[in-house]
Amino acid sequence: MSDFRSMFDDVSRIGATPAGGVDRQALTAEDGAARGWLTERFKAAGMRTHVDEIGNLFGIYDWVPGAPVVLTGSHLDSQPAGGRFDGAYGVLASLEAAKRLQAARVTGDLEPRFNLAVADWTNEEGARFQPSVMGSSVYVGELSLEAALRAVDRDGVDVRSALRGIGAAGTAPLDLRPAGYVEIHVEQGDRLERAGIDVGLVTGNWATRKYDIRIDGRQSHTGPTPMRQRMDAMYAAALVISGVRDIADGAEVDMHSSVTQVHGYPDSPNVVTSRVTAHVELRAERAASLDPAEEAFRALLTRAATRSNTEITVTRASRRDSEQYWPEGVRIAREVAQELGFSARELKTIAGHDSIQLNHIVPTVMLFVPSVSGEAHNEFEDTATADMLNGVRLLAVVLRQLITNSALVEQPAMRLRGSETVHKPLNCGFSCNAGRPTGSIASL
Amino acid sequence: MSDFRSMFDDVSRIGATPAGGVDRQALTAEDGAARGWLTERFKAAGMRTHVDEIGNLFGIYDWVPGAPVVLTGSHLDSQPAGGRFDGAYGVLASLEAAKRLQAARVTGDLEPRFNLAVADWTNEEGARFQPSVMGSSVYVGELSLEAALRAVDRDGVDVRSALRGIGAAGTAPLDLRPAGYVEIHVEQGDRLERAGIDVGLVTGNWATRKYDIRIDGRQSHTGPTPMRQRMDAMYAAALVISGVRDIADGAEVDMHSSVTQVHGYPDSPNVVTSRVTAHVELRAERAASLDPAEEAFRALLTRAATRSNTEITVTRASRRDSEQYWPEGVRIAREVAQELGFSARELKTIAGHDSIQLNHIVPTVMLFVPSVSGEAHNEFEDTATADMLNGVRLLAVVLRQLITNSALVEQPAMRLRGSETVHKPLNCGFSCNAGRPTGSIASL
Repeated sequence: MSDFRSMFDDVSRIGATPAGGVDRQALTAEDGAARGWLTERFKAAGMRTHVDEIGNLFGIYDWVPGAPVVLTGSHLDSQPAGGRFDGAYGVLASLEAAKRLQAARVTGDLEPRFNLAVADWTNEEGARFQPSVMGSSVYVGELSLEAALRAVDRDGVDVRSALRGIGAAGTAPLDLRPAGYVEIHVEQGDRLERAGIDVGLVTGNWATRKYDIRIDGRQSHTGPTPMRQRMDAMYAAALVISGVRDIADGAEVDMHSSVTQVHGYPDSPNVVTSRVTAHVELRAERAASLDPAEEAFRALLTRAATRSNTEITVTRASRRDSEQYWPEGVRIAREVAQELGFSARELKTIAGHDSIQLNHIVPTVMLFVPSVSGEAHNEFEDTATADMLNGVRLLAVVLRQLITNSALVEQPAMRLRGSETVHKPLNCGFSCNAGRPTGSIASL
Repeated sequence: MSDFRSMFDDVSRIGATPAGGVDRQALTAEDGAARGWLTERFKAAGMRTHVDEIGNLFGIYDWVPGAPVVLTGSHLDSQPAGGRFDGAYGVLASLEAAKRLQAARVTGDLEPRFNLAVADWTNEEGARFQPSVMGSSVYVGELSLEAALRAVDRDGVDVRSALRGIGAAGTAPLDLRPAGYVEIHVEQGDRLERAGIDVGLVTGNWATRKYDIRIDGRQSHTGPTPMRQRMDAMYAAALVISGVRDIADGAEVDMHSSVTQVHGYPDSPNVVTSRVTAHVELRAERAASLDPAEEAFRALLTRAATRSNTEITVTRASRRDSEQYWPEGVRIAREVAQELGFSARELKTIAGHDSIQLNHIVPTVMLFVPSVSGEAHNEFEDTATADMLNGVRLLAVVLRQLITNSALVEQPAMRLRGSETVHKPLNCGFSCNAGRPTGSIASL
């Protein structure tokens, strides 16, 4: 077995589930153990380690005093009953690639223009704490550190104390200016596998709209309360859930949708549900496709509220527009893949990644390796060892290009995006009540 | 203010909620406090107190050595954010009526043939622990004591330890043979109020069908997982929830329905729900009306499972048929109401009550007083003080008739029903998977 596979199997034991997955949600004891394991690996590789205030963990090769750093990494946290590969593969591939570059540097085979750091971003998954891509969002300045530290899980524990609880609360930002970012990840879909392609070169991300909704009905008795008098928030939720699916299924483009985290109160068998909260997602390749979907969603909420005699409020709405990754990075990765004899295909990422956040401030390259059967966010997630090793080689050479060639040097050092327009919670809630929208979606 | 109203306001302070209701779920500290309060009231009234193994609390006037006992009562437990009147009114009205009868006996104005006991039945609501009407079901022998003690709340606490936790675990059954039962309760609907009627005489109960269902889908990513590959248990749940409502709305008779306690797993925002459990109820005046509804429900589950590519299983099904209360009791109550100058109306109870259980073993009388606006199982539940006082008078005189006249004496002492047919969990689960029912509903 390769050293890399053996290292991967090592970390997969942390939070392992009986069915072959991992449950290593952000800032749990299992996440803490994985961070401890990674810190040891960083030190064994001769790296300096650093933890910033939101717990992002870095292993750094300080090669060029005063020079910026090229970052590479992903995340060690997982979904509940999640897969071994999602995130962890990218962190380990980054470490392995960094070690190979360090070996090349020691033998004089590499003359870097930049420093190199491997990152384990805090809470990419957003399962225990929302929002997702939390650590990288704080890093790029799109989420304030204070807001992130205040986020609470369903037991009321906040990020600040959870970080302290596992000893992962740093005190200072990374002391190196970022120059670029490269992330490798399992595809989580089946496009590469179905086409028999070795590696994916990510050219951009799908657009998303995410909404938290609250439905206010009225608590009553499931027995004697006359049906005409009911204001059943769970019935309203059902109309919304199936209606959202209908919007996606009826779209003219490939559109993905989901409604999750459906929570009803007071949650007693013979009490009509007075309040439901839920999370709604709509995704499509182009933001323009989501505009009519959002119109339809608004109409759906009004219809569902009217029919169930409830009030429906969008309590939080966020959008991520379709954006391009660094085109020069895609070109470099394509050439490297060709050099290494890997078949490669350009595609867009449908899932969110830390790279989407980094892409807002530095030239960013995102690479995929195939997933088996497209399984993702479950214990059956799989990627062939050969594909993982291909990915490590691709990543190492791409990183080598970036830290030695002129491509990054020619880039403006920071191209920070206006944070108003990108995947940021907007104060744009709207309400629907018995056919009378009480707010506006216009600002979305 | 009347003594009765003042006593009622007293108990309403135990577990009071800011909005004017109570949260006094079964076997919580609040329920324990209410039981302690009631025990003191029993003692102050000169009653012997007794607690049986499931925690049913009795206050007893041992008037006639060796004679059976006429029971009267209701329950002090509430729904979460429930009303002050539901249950508590009946317990206090029973206590007040019993005290009046004791006063009459002391002055020689009453010569009882029976003993009299006021009962606070354990866990009528079934909010924290299922099933509902737990204490009275154990009392009448339709639920085994062991099964009841094993029931767990969502934190994994079982009834046995919850009983001990509040010091409400007795060691022996009540030592008196029951001869009859009378319960008074707020209507929880608006039939009396709309008709301007003082009291309701309950002639029978609506039939119900209750189902616990489990939907098994498959965990995946809400983003990249292709829609054709999804097995979204929450989408299936939505189809079931709205479909159940359609069944009730489309029925030829007045049919009430609800779907509650909808719980999704793993409950992460960007993970397609792999499993949902939910509780479904269908109610109608006549059991025969529920047969076609159950057929439609079965077809709905198959349709929802097929459309969502999930498997839906009925994990528990129970039925309560429409049953008559003691006709002679209705006649007696009608005469008493007339004597007292109260307008009275016969009606059926749509909600479940402890009296439905008692009705299976002894002649049982069920009385209603009007609810304001039909509000029930919420903090806005209300009944006018004058209506409460009317009810106490009606109850006292009906009880007086039963313990002095020959009606009960002429009854067979016990008419225990075959427990197979009555409101008992049946092993009759059925599954629906992609159009192929994998079980049978025939035994329902």
